[in-house]
Amino acid sequence: MIKGNDPILLTPGPLTTSLETKQAMLRDWGSWDATFNRITASICEDVVDVVHGKATHVAVPLQGSGTFSVEAAIGNLVPRDGKVLVPNNGAYCLRILKICKYLGRAHVALDIPEDKHPTAAMIEEALVKDPSITHVAQVHCETGAGILNPLAEIAEVCAKHGKGLIVDAMSSFGALDIDVSKHPMDAVIAASGKCIEGPPGMGFVIARKAVLEKCQGNSHSLAMDLYDQWTYMQKTTQWRFTPPTHVVAAFHAALGQFKAEGGQPARGARYRKNCETLIEGMGALGFRTFLSKEVQAPVIVTFHAPGDPAYTFKDFYEKVKARGYILYPGKLTQVETFRVGCIGAIDHNEMRNVVSAVAETLKEMGVQKVAPKLLAAA
Amino acid sequence: MIKGNDPILLTPGPLTTSLETKQAMLRDWGSWDATFNRITASICEDVVDVVHGKATHVAVPLQGSGTFSVEAAIGNLVPRDGKVLVPNNGAYCLRILKICKYLGRAHVALDIPEDKHPTAAMIEEALVKDPSITHVAQVHCETGAGILNPLAEIAEVCAKHGKGLIVDAMSSFGALDIDVSKHPMDAVIAASGKCIEGPPGMGFVIARKAVLEKCQGNSHSLAMDLYDQWTYMQKTTQWRFTPPTHVVAAFHAALGQFKAEGGQPARGARYRKNCETLIEGMGALGFRTFLSKEVQAPVIVTFHAPGDPAYTFKDFYEKVKARGYILYPGKLTQVETFRVGCIGAIDHNEMRNVVSAVAETLKEMGVQKVAPKLLAAA
Repeated sequence: MIKGNDPILLTPGPLTTSLETKQAMLRDWGSWDATFNRITASICEDVVDVVHGKATHVAVPLQGSGTFSVEAAIGNLVPRDGKVLVPNNGAYCLRILKICKYLGRAHVALDIPEDKHPTAAMIEEALVKDPSITHVAQVHCETGAGILNPLAEIAEVCAKHGKGLIVDAMSSFGALDIDVSKHPMDAVIAASGKCIEGPPGMGFVIARKAVLEKCQGNSHSLAMDLYDQWTYMQKTTQWRFTPPTHVVAAFHAALGQFKAEGGQPARGARYRKNCETLIEGMGALGFRTFLSKEVQAPVIVTFHAPGDPAYTFKDFYEKVKARGYILYPGKLTQVETFRVGCIGAIDHNEMRNVVSAVAETLKEMGVQKVAPKLLAAA
Repeated sequence: MIKGNDPILLTPGPLTTSLETKQAMLRDWGSWDATFNRITASICEDVVDVVHGKATHVAVPLQGSGTFSVEAAIGNLVPRDGKVLVPNNGAYCLRILKICKYLGRAHVALDIPEDKHPTAAMIEEALVKDPSITHVAQVHCETGAGILNPLAEIAEVCAKHGKGLIVDAMSSFGALDIDVSKHPMDAVIAASGKCIEGPPGMGFVIARKAVLEKCQGNSHSLAMDLYDQWTYMQKTTQWRFTPPTHVVAAFHAALGQFKAEGGQPARGARYRKNCETLIEGMGALGFRTFLSKEVQAPVIVTFHAPGDPAYTFKDFYEKVKARGYILYPGKLTQVETFRVGCIGAIDHNEMRNVVSAVAETLKEMGVQKVAPKLLAAA
């Protein structure tokens, strides 16, 4: 069924991982065993270090995709009578609002266009207007469009007003600077299969210890009870329920490579170079980015789809895939787009190659007009 | 850090998997990609076939450990005003009761000693006594002690009284016969890392389609909303949130080997031979099983700990591990025990070898009295 080389994943995750990381999965681990549980402990220490949280924060790992960890953070850290402000500029912000609805946590959206970010002033205004808000849930890099939200400023305004800040850092963790020692955050959430370049299958919540300690009884779910997972793990060194052992071991290997590369600054620099190479190359082919340069995160880039009637995403996707690259569909409702990720175990050479693959594909499809259709005025 | 060969896992999961299964994880998959989603579809078909459910049931996969799927089944299939009867003879039954509590589902326990199984008559009596019960949640093989509960008879009595039956088949699925075409069940729940011999990281709920269709809006959780996962997957072929792609691919490979071996009858026969070889060999050393032969499932065997003062489980575990075998602690509160699993990519030769490893370990520890301490009358 599988022929030839693996295609390179230019998606927001799962990503292309290194062979060393995948080879860490060639071993079966007992989940009760001390050697395995030392791996878990090492992961928890490492991810706390990434956000400079050693003095104040602890990491609680959780089975499942990143969304499981986001839901667990909301369900555990926001008390049942809390109220969550969600600055909303994309699909993952909407998902947090949906989670609040499922969990019966009061919530209010601060709607912002998908190509703009919230400002500290906008959030301050919302907090002043509604003093019953207890928490802000902020997506750091909103992968829907690829936009970077100004986390440090938002953290300051939350601290000033005494509100808890819960950060969905799914696609920024490890790539962009997050410093909980300078900018107060109650929780930073990410997952194994993103910028640390592990396989998907587990997430984690890096929570302020003083906050987590007060969360007993908040959780809506046994499986997602972070407080219970944390206290059990402290007592036993083990996960409460069967961990995805192979994924955990591979994530550990990926963290080793992350540290060897030079940690977040080096990883971020590689991704920025990927992103610049991609935008430059695609620009030369006539593609326009959806976001302006100032708000573009070096994680995933949304391009306007070509306006040529010969273009369909399905065909484009299949033909670029046949050339070895997996792209990602757009996630915007108003305009036709597609996305290309800059993250994973890849460098700028891959970005040059994908630009060539796109150029060849357009030629094969007979796409001549790469510029987007004119948008009707809203 | 890793030296020598991997130890063999004689635990209730994660298990020892084949190299072929692990090697399926040496590839990165895009979760949006059609090729990957055909793997998911194939898994769903295969697991439904294992329980003969093609005509009536559908499989919904879910990220996380098996417990996540059990919680999702309770949260989705039991309406918010439902009431669950839980025949309780061990740790995994207790876990279901705990889930009901978290989810605010009314529940009642039918307590049974850990070395006995519920009978259809006992369940019938409970159903007649409390007509407000809507569902029975039954653990098939209760891994706490390793006991086999009489699923077929329980299914009959549930059908007779028009109650929904939700089966936690975590450690029996694929090894023991479960036939939803003969014995009505609303749901059968299992996971990747058990008797199909895949890696841990995903579970699945095989639900009666006619029941699942009516479950919209029941779920307490976005991440665990099985109805939403199912309808989204039907529409898009994709998982709603990032699947553990490597685990999914390896589980698919494991299912291929399961079918090649001869499916459930062959897998069950191999495990039975493992179990017999183990009990016979350990018996010759003087070990006594906690369960009587009639109720022992060929999955995991609980042995009484030796009564000799030179025995401690920690020391015993480490020394047997040094000889290449990972055992499991007991999970009973009343008596000191340990457990040895019979499942995974192992055969009766491994069981002979672990008996030798145990014999050598006892000698090294200076354990002479293998028979258990006399138990004080309860």
